[in-house]
Order: sequence, then C-alpha cells, then structure tokens
Amino acid sequence: MTTTIAEFEQRVRDSAGRQAFLTYLGARLTSVSSGAVEIVVPFREALGQQHGFLHAGVIATIADTACGYAAYTLMPATSEVLTVEFKLNLLRPGVGGEFAARARVLRSGKTITVTQADVFAINQDQEEQIATMVATLICKR
Amino acid sequence: MTTTIAEFEQRVRDSAGRQAFLTYLGARLTSVSSGAVEIVVPFREALGQQHGFLHAGVIATIADTACGYAAYTLMPATSEVLTVEFKLNLLRPGVGGEFAARARVLRSGKTITVTQADVFAINQDQEEQIATMVATLICKR
Amino acid sequence: MTTTIAEFEQRVRDSAGRQAFLTYLGARLTSVSSGAVEIVVPFREALGQQHGFLHAGVIATIADTACGYAAYTLMPATSEVLTVEFKLNLLRPGVGGEFAARARVLRSGKTITVTQADVFAINQDQEEQIATMVATLICKR
Amino acid sequence: MTTTIAEFEQRVRDSAGRQAFLTYLGARLTSVSSGAVEIVVPFREALGQQHGFLHAGVIATIADTACGYAAYTLMPATSEVLTVEFKLNLLRPGVGGEFAARARVLRSGKTITVTQADVFAINQDQEEQIATMVATLICKR
Repeated sequence: MTTTIAEFEQRVRDSAGRQAFLTYLGARLTSVSSGAVEIVVPFREALGQQHGFLHAGVIATIADTACGYAAYTLMPATSEVLTVEFKLNLLRPGVGGEFAARARVLRSGKTITVTQADVFAINQDQEEQIATMVATLICKR
Repeated sequence: MTTTIAEFEQRVRDSAGRQAFLTYLGARLTSVSSGAVEIVVPFREALGQQHGFLHAGVIATIADTACGYAAYTLMPATSEVLTVEFKLNLLRPGVGGEFAARARVLRSGKTITVTQADVFAINQDQEEQIATMVATLICKR
Repeated sequence: MTTTIAEFEQRVRDSAGRQAFLTYLGARLTSVSSGAVEIVVPFREALGQQHGFLHAGVIATIADTACGYAAYTLMPATSEVLTVEFKLNLLRPGVGGEFAARARVLRSGKTITVTQADVFAINQDQEEQIATMVATLICKR
Repeated sequence: MTTTIAEFEQRVRDSAGRQAFLTYLGARLTSVSSGAVEIVVPFREALGQQHGFLHAGVIATIADTACGYAAYTLMPATSEVLTVEFKLNLLRPGVGGEFAARARVLRSGKTITVTQADVFAINQDQEEQIATMVATLICKR
C-alpha cells in the first residue's frame, strides 16, 4: 500500500493548513516532494528582533516545520511526527525580502528520522544562506 | 564602572520593548536579575501547531530570547549580543495556559557566553517542564 | 516487577565492563544511582590534544557514556539504550588531574530519554566545570 | 600575505601530529584542502562499545578534529582554533573496517566558523553514512 506523490503532497498541505502559527507568520509551503519540503515566509516588521532582522525564533519555526514535513512525506499516512530536538546554527543576520527554509531527510528509520534544513535570505534574485538546522523527529504510528 | 541592577534591568527591558516579534507573541519579561531572565507568554490559538499545542517555534523564541537577555545582563552596557547557536530538546507537549522560559548563564567569557533555559507549561498553580535549551551567544563590544 | 538498586547498579557495571574503549581510556564508573551516573577518567598525555589539554573527544566519550548509563538505570533490564544525538558545549579548557562526567535524567519517556551531563576538571580538591552535554537516547525493548 | 596550499596542508599535518589522542586512536589525516579535511580511523576492538560497534566517542573525536582542521585551513597561520560546541547525530551503528570523517566549512567569519562533518563506515568499497556533526569553532588571533 504505497502513497502516491499527490497524496502525500495533499497530506502535508492539509496538516500545514491546520497550523495556526504558520498562518500567523504568513508562511507558505512552496514545495513538497518525497523527503524534501520548502517553506517561505516574507519579511515584515512584526517578525523582527531589536535590530530589525528576522527573529531567530522565526528562522527556527520555518526550519523546524520544513524538517517535520520532510520527515512526514516518508511516513505512513496515519502516523504522527513529533520533533524530539533541533539545533539551529545562525550563519548570518536575517536580512532579506523573504526567507526560505529547505529541508531534506538525512536518514529515515522506523522510529527516528534525522533531517537538515538550510535557511536562505532572498533579495530579488540573490540568495544567501543564513542558518542551518539538524533536527531529530519521532514517528508515532 | 559597574552597572547597577536597576540599570541593567532597564537596559534589558528597553531592548525587549524594541523586539516586534515578542510583542506580536504577547511575550513579557517577568523577571530580570544578574545572569538570569524569565519570559512568559500566554497561550492562544494563533500560537498553536496542528494538534493545538504551543508551536515548537514559539518555545524556541522565548527560550532563545531569555538566553540572550540573561547573557546581556553580564555584559558591558554598550555591547551587543548575538545568538551563535542553540539546541532545543522538547520533553513534553506544549499544553498550558501560559509558558515560562527561565534562562541562566552557565559560563560568561569575554567573547562567548553559554546559557541554559528551561521552559515550563503553567496550568493554574501547577508547573511542568516541557523543554530545555542550551544556547551559545557572542558579545560584540 | 521492580529492579532493586543493587540489580541495576550491577547491570550498569557489567555493561561498562564490556566497553573496550572505556577500559582503553582508563575510565571508571564511580557512582551509580537511580537516574544518575558518574564516570571518572584520570588525565594522561595520551588523551591530550595539540595544546596538552584533554581532547574534546574524551570529554564527549565520558559524558555520552554517563548519559547512556543514567538513562539505562530507569529502563527495563532487558532493554537496550542507544544514543540518538548529543550536543557538547565546551566551557573551559580541559586542564586537570582527573575529569568527572556527572549525568542525570531530565525526562524519561517510554521510547525517548533526555539526559544532561556536566563535566568537571578536578585538581586536588578543587573542581571546575569544563563542559555540559544534553543527550537524547532511545530505548529498544 | 597569502598562505599556499602546501603551507596550510603542512600546518594542519604538524598540528595533527602533536595530538597524542589521535595517534592513540590510530587516526590519520587522509586529505587536506582549502576548507575541507578528511580523517580516517581503522576499526579495532579497543575502540568498541558494549555491542562491538565503534564507540560514539571515537566518532565524535574524528568528526570534531576534522571540523577543527577544516576551519583552521581558512585562518591566519598564527591563529589558534578552539571548539565552542558540536552536536553529533548518530544515523546508523558504527560497523565497518574503517571510518572516515569528512568536514567542510559552512561559514567562515572573523571570529566564528561553522563546519559540518559527515562520518562514513567503509567496508571494502562500500560506504554508508553513520553520523553527521555541525560544529562551531572560535578563532583566537
């Protein structure tokens, strides 16, 4: 009983649509494929810290969410995915018009999945990496 | 030239007041002392994930912010503190009326400060730890 | 069906005795109690890095091992504990006559256990913390 | 005043030669280039844990060392590099004839460098990734 690409894409989109905090941030799911997910959030002042850069908490939110959905694309439809832990390394200040978190699965086990998300600041057509996250997730069947 | 407790408390509160994202979350600075800071955020639906629990991104935001200010209380007034990295371990689901992140400095060096924040869910008078973060910060003088 | 303190202490000691790398390092299990373990390693030149301090790899080894055994003391006798991930923050250079890693369980779940180990340099009767580790472990029953 | 490739390769090899613990493990520097380093350690029983797999502490040691040297290749010759923190995610058991840690620099700043090392088990001509580490280093000039 396999899941088609269209099915898991729909499953991920349905779940993301129920995440009130993502809606609140203005985040959108821009790409979903097997083991990889992209989430984009446009900058606005309400998401800033004291110097006007994107708050690290917003970076963590989109990276963690992209990691969770990337893991979820490789799991049974009825399972539930929970974050166990993540580490976020901040590489550059979050200055940009919008920000993209691109996650991929590094290792998908029966219980534990390990993922990595790179976060980019996008200014016109220029991209610059501002952060990387490695996250551990657990699959509850 | 030492800083009085009242001065650094004011400094931290001024900086927090300029953090648009904290205001947006409804977070408030509930305690500031030398090397320790508490931040509290009340739960509301807009901060939830797909199961209605507090989003891990909100937990990360208040923990990271508490760590940053805890570090800042031990630094020269004119310095700037930036997060280098943090790891967040999620211990229990974020279910509660409000949430408190309590940060303390583990090691304050000239350049690098290491801090830890424990995050608690508060329901009436009951508290339960839901997460822990260890964060590295850098002081730019 | 509970395990007595003597039983789990013996279980941890038996397992540690089979860890060739711990023997190689000269590490010994100095304390075992419910949810807490201490491991000590005496300094010698063979464990140093290029400046003569204790190699971060040795610090990671004793901290990870203490975390694993602390988790194990709270698990069924027939289960197996594996490290999922750990982060080590180095607070000071590893200078000392011997080094102690003291681990405790932060949260013991059915599948996932989260632990923390503080590592100290010991010089005569003086102790100084040189590192802290938060580790995630998985219990296979 | 630039450093030639031969010069920094020699600098890294000299430093590694002074690391007693690496010698003790039988680790060797198998590749050095600008921003990237490989370290290999052959398996032997003395490096095992209770199930006979490579001890996580050995994996951490070669990954951390490769990260440190990868950072060092991009720094001034007279500077000193120290590990601030690393997180190691274990993806599979350490079963193999030898193990290679391959590190690259993700971001090289004036003070802080962030690196990542992937660790592989090598069996004849088959490779399988067993771990990944993201490490933060500080450059003291």
